[in-house]
Amino acid sequence: MNFASDNTGPAHPRVMEALMRANEGRATSYGADALMEEVRTLVREAFEAPEAAVYLVATGTAANSLILATLAQPWQAIFCSEVAHIHEDECNAPEFYTGGAKLTIVPHEAGMMDPDALARAYEAEESRGVHGPQRGPVSITQVSEKGGVHTLDHLRALTGVARRFGQPVHMDGARFANALVALGCSPAEMTWKAGVDAVSLGGTKNGLLGVEAVVFFDPAHAWQFELRRKRAGHLFSKHRYLSAQMAAYLQDDLWIEMAQAANAAAARLVRGLKQRPDVTLAHDPRANIVFADWPRAAHRRLQEAGATYYIWNGGLEGPDDEALTARLVTDWSMPHADIDRFLDLMSG
Amino acid sequence: MNFASDNTGPAHPRVMEALMRANEGRATSYGADALMEEVRTLVREAFEAPEAAVYLVATGTAANSLILATLAQPWQAIFCSEVAHIHEDECNAPEFYTGGAKLTIVPHEAGMMDPDALARAYEAEESRGVHGPQRGPVSITQVSEKGGVHTLDHLRALTGVARRFGQPVHMDGARFANALVALGCSPAEMTWKAGVDAVSLGGTKNGLLGVEAVVFFDPAHAWQFELRRKRAGHLFSKHRYLSAQMAAYLQDDLWIEMAQAANAAAARLVRGLKQRPDVTLAHDPRANIVFADWPRAAHRRLQEAGATYYIWNGGLEGPDDEALTARLVTDWSMPHADIDRFLDLMSG
Amino acid sequence: MNFASDNTGPAHPRVMEALMRANEGRATSYGADALMEEVRTLVREAFEAPEAAVYLVATGTAANSLILATLAQPWQAIFCSEVAHIHEDECNAPEFYTGGAKLTIVPHEAGMMDPDALARAYEAEESRGVHGPQRGPVSITQVSEKGGVHTLDHLRALTGVARRFGQPVHMDGARFANALVALGCSPAEMTWKAGVDAVSLGGTKNGLLGVEAVVFFDPAHAWQFELRRKRAGHLFSKHRYLSAQMAAYLQDDLWIEMAQAANAAAARLVRGLKQRPDVTLAHDPRANIVFADWPRAAHRRLQEAGATYYIWNGGLEGPDDEALTARLVTDWSMPHADIDRFLDLMSG
Amino acid sequence: MNFASDNTGPAHPRVMEALMRANEGRATSYGADALMEEVRTLVREAFEAPEAAVYLVATGTAANSLILATLAQPWQAIFCSEVAHIHEDECNAPEFYTGGAKLTIVPHEAGMMDPDALARAYEAEESRGVHGPQRGPVSITQVSEKGGVHTLDHLRALTGVARRFGQPVHMDGARFANALVALGCSPAEMTWKAGVDAVSLGGTKNGLLGVEAVVFFDPAHAWQFELRRKRAGHLFSKHRYLSAQMAAYLQDDLWIEMAQAANAAAARLVRGLKQRPDVTLAHDPRANIVFADWPRAAHRRLQEAGATYYIWNGGLEGPDDEALTARLVTDWSMPHADIDRFLDLMSG
Repeated sequence: MNFASDNTGPAHPRVMEALMRANEGRATSYGADALMEEVRTLVREAFEAPEAAVYLVATGTAANSLILATLAQPWQAIFCSEVAHIHEDECNAPEFYTGGAKLTIVPHEAGMMDPDALARAYEAEESRGVHGPQRGPVSITQVSEKGGVHTLDHLRALTGVARRFGQPVHMDGARFANALVALGCSPAEMTWKAGVDAVSLGGTKNGLLGVEAVVFFDPAHAWQFELRRKRAGHLFSKHRYLSAQMAAYLQDDLWIEMAQAANAAAARLVRGLKQRPDVTLAHDPRANIVFADWPRAAHRRLQEAGATYYIWNGGLEGPDDEALTARLVTDWSMPHADIDRFLDLMSG
Repeated sequence: MNFASDNTGPAHPRVMEALMRANEGRATSYGADALMEEVRTLVREAFEAPEAAVYLVATGTAANSLILATLAQPWQAIFCSEVAHIHEDECNAPEFYTGGAKLTIVPHEAGMMDPDALARAYEAEESRGVHGPQRGPVSITQVSEKGGVHTLDHLRALTGVARRFGQPVHMDGARFANALVALGCSPAEMTWKAGVDAVSLGGTKNGLLGVEAVVFFDPAHAWQFELRRKRAGHLFSKHRYLSAQMAAYLQDDLWIEMAQAANAAAARLVRGLKQRPDVTLAHDPRANIVFADWPRAAHRRLQEAGATYYIWNGGLEGPDDEALTARLVTDWSMPHADIDRFLDLMSG
Repeated sequence: MNFASDNTGPAHPRVMEALMRANEGRATSYGADALMEEVRTLVREAFEAPEAAVYLVATGTAANSLILATLAQPWQAIFCSEVAHIHEDECNAPEFYTGGAKLTIVPHEAGMMDPDALARAYEAEESRGVHGPQRGPVSITQVSEKGGVHTLDHLRALTGVARRFGQPVHMDGARFANALVALGCSPAEMTWKAGVDAVSLGGTKNGLLGVEAVVFFDPAHAWQFELRRKRAGHLFSKHRYLSAQMAAYLQDDLWIEMAQAANAAAARLVRGLKQRPDVTLAHDPRANIVFADWPRAAHRRLQEAGATYYIWNGGLEGPDDEALTARLVTDWSMPHADIDRFLDLMSG
Repeated sequence: MNFASDNTGPAHPRVMEALMRANEGRATSYGADALMEEVRTLVREAFEAPEAAVYLVATGTAANSLILATLAQPWQAIFCSEVAHIHEDECNAPEFYTGGAKLTIVPHEAGMMDPDALARAYEAEESRGVHGPQRGPVSITQVSEKGGVHTLDHLRALTGVARRFGQPVHMDGARFANALVALGCSPAEMTWKAGVDAVSLGGTKNGLLGVEAVVFFDPAHAWQFELRRKRAGHLFSKHRYLSAQMAAYLQDDLWIEMAQAANAAAARLVRGLKQRPDVTLAHDPRANIVFADWPRAAHRRLQEAGATYYIWNGGLEGPDDEALTARLVTDWSMPHADIDRFLDLMSG
């Protein structure tokens, strides 16, 4: 009953097999391995983007920060929500990588920025000539950190605002596949066709050991990105082990299969939670993150029985009937029995 | 016959097995996995340093740059040789991570700085008050990029100079185990007992997929390092896969075993080269890197037969008898048959 | 009738005379001039701080950013209001100088942070271990950018919060003397006795050509600050011309005299505005910045007659009776006749 | 007898008068003052460059670093001599401003790089793909820090190398006017006609209080430079006081007049030194910096009599007849009587 995060689960057996196969013989280092050629083809096909520049790094923070540093100037503002991972959970990595750009906060619902509020935020910046921060890219997290899945219309509304101000769009896709499955659309529809310029395509939270793809739909950024990756220490010498993971991920739609399993587990959980009168869902989750409130007594019971998850607003000490907010995250490997047992335990 | 680098070979089977075992069940993320506890203990035991702060990152550039950023201030000079990896091969990563420290070049032989020259370089910096760069750490590469292995006396002479100027010492140990085997000393003797404050303990070039340990003998640096690692995107969420590699590396002296194999392969190569009148060794190699000159005709013959290695000073076009310098690197997996075939091919 | 800013007026004749006197003969460069010795003494006496480290730079942005870089780590958050000059009007200079610290916005009234809100902001940061930004200094602007003058109680409440979280306090004192005059307190009472660690002591907006003093009450920061100033290009070779200005400023209380004149001019303006039924003052101004609303028709009349000032929320085109917000700033040199003419013109 | 530096002397009376005149009434701030319009015209006329972007800052380090940050990428090498001010005397300011570019040292004579050595240095960088620093701009100091004046041919040879590698050229012209006078050429001939892209046009060392002009011959860099200047705190609010200095400098060729006086003083000194058998000149000085060796006994006599200058390689303690190297710098205000007295004192 570990719902702490989608980064606590194991990698998929097919990924491990791919890693084993990749370990045979010698391979050219630093991204010139044959498997990377395959990855490039697979990503370009998946995104219907034959010109896209494709790179691999090992962490989401690296993917996000290196993309933002490529798209933003140090004197610019990057627009994002207050709960954006880049704002809250990367210890100022975007500021470090961009050389001091500012993250400007835009009002949001369930981690999804309001397009009108984004437009107002853009209007407000760059109204003081050389004195204020200049307008820069917008960063959208899909699935949002609060479990929200932007519709294609929502995405287009946000990217339209950025476009209106001549600014590029980054998508933090740490849970890209989960959103894809939730929307039932294509990777192209959720990215460049909706106005996204570059995406951090997550693999780590969805069944890999630790690989994220960086995709620039305009290859003009390629060489600069390669230099930024190298001087950040994010270019791997034995790169084949990254390539092998990402190739296995995209082959035979393993990534979709795993995201479906994760979303299905969350849906099962949500169905159970909805049947309980003392549970309030923050919003109707469509992907693999669930935020819900229920009384402390039930939290205590669950955690004492070994359930693991984050409580957002308080500890186990306190009145029994006070509502506490839980964040529950599922991944491809989540046993349905765990979910059922969790729901049983809530009933006490 | 691939002598291009020790980063083109496979990981050791025991490492792959450890990775497989680590993939079972769920594990706490971001370095709080149980395996990391084991790694910490193994490193501390290996270095006889029960207080040492121990961290894992995935690349040597990350290890070096993060250590240097922790030890150096942005207004300081870091002393190193002209052929230091941090100077030549990290695309200004140390400058990026330190926020603009300067790398001050010290004369060297076979990549090993001359202690007197180091002292003179220290004297020269900080002689202009606030105007010039201030004195900072020295960075020693052991095994050097030219294949040189510093004796313990040499190390002590260099660290003694740094100490005299109140400055700390970093060791780039990308090939630490190869040096250890060459010197036949203990990890403690080659580091803190010789005056080293922090070491990048390489695993990637010596049979891992991609892990380097960072060891600070004074744990005062620990928290700052953790913050620097996080904001650089070098903290892995599924950290257990790094831990598993490093644990396997240190258990039952696998790291020593692999370094012995690599050094033995180089020694076999050197024995063969020494018997040839047209070959000149740059110096007598004690670890797993060999620099040697021989005529272009033999280079052409070797490369046409499929041998892979770097030629330092010229191409295959040109006079047959002109001497070109080869860099040959061996690793744990190098078949002796390849070496023998290589030597046969040289003879024509 | 130029109320655009207190940086559009001339320097005081006594300052110009001091500059002339300073131009005689040769003087040691880079801050070792005899006049700087005098400045140091004058500042220490004015602040009753015999140990304080005192430096001069030429711009407020330099003073603020260099202090913040000295007090904050790159992975920290600096707490300030949304209208803080460091946030809105320095084109990301604090982010640049600190190497990527984050400015965390705290709710405010008239540019003065609410101490409870500050406490909540501190609570919220550093609640996610290594992942989020770490807590850092608070930056208070006295006089605030909205013309607010913190009482000593208010200052102590804010610094008390910072202290509670173990963090230092910066005061942006671009209009320090105007606040001093408004409060009728001593420099010591408004700074170190109230818990302030370092202050940017403005001179430029109050009758100098371009000099701000940097004062650290704890001299431990001195050498680091000197290095930061130098590598930022803010150490002047012909430093005597900065020293001369600041010495003249503090001698015979010229700074107080000029701030009194500026505040008196604002008070005269406010008295006139208060008598008009169509004018709404944002708050009761105590220093030299006035924010007030009145109908567009009067704005149009004033600006057509040559009055210069900023309109905050709209242009001269639009309905006559719509209220627009003006920012009016006075300095030591403001002729009272200009104020009276301005008030006359409002009446039409 | 103060030959310590050309930054210890006073500003020219005509500059002080201009400053006084500029202090009348109110002026638009942040570089939009009417005097700056005049400066722009004067600089463009002086350089025959009607399109040039022209800015003012207050220190040479600011001018150099901001230009280099505009011309260089963080992953590049900037080529300069070992004695370049940007390398030796700016406490890593270029590394700070560029976000971590590397200064690559090129062999020089009298501070003037050898064009062939520069070509070899360019060849050597960027030979390792993404791994090494990439090629970036060259920075030439005219007059060099060792007093050398590049001929136009020498300049063209150096800029030709940069051009061959597609890289731009910066000129550190802290003593630009002194070089101009020495060569008897036009500002255009010494800059853009010789292949220079941007120049730090010094005023501070040549009779101003503290102003340097930044000139980009290609105005494409203008807006980026303005943002960089602002976020570095080098944009002055009361900018008119910078404008006034630079306008006075260029009007009626005051800058040339002052440089002629400085060079003439140095020439007088050199004539005297040449007549002494115990003096060896480092090279024949053409501008206002003299390097010469003579025995310690004479140094002792001079310094005890109150002469001020730098001794490069040793102190006053030691054998009487050991040769020590003096650096002597003259400016526009140097009394010839001081020079004559200095020469008399040498004779003992």
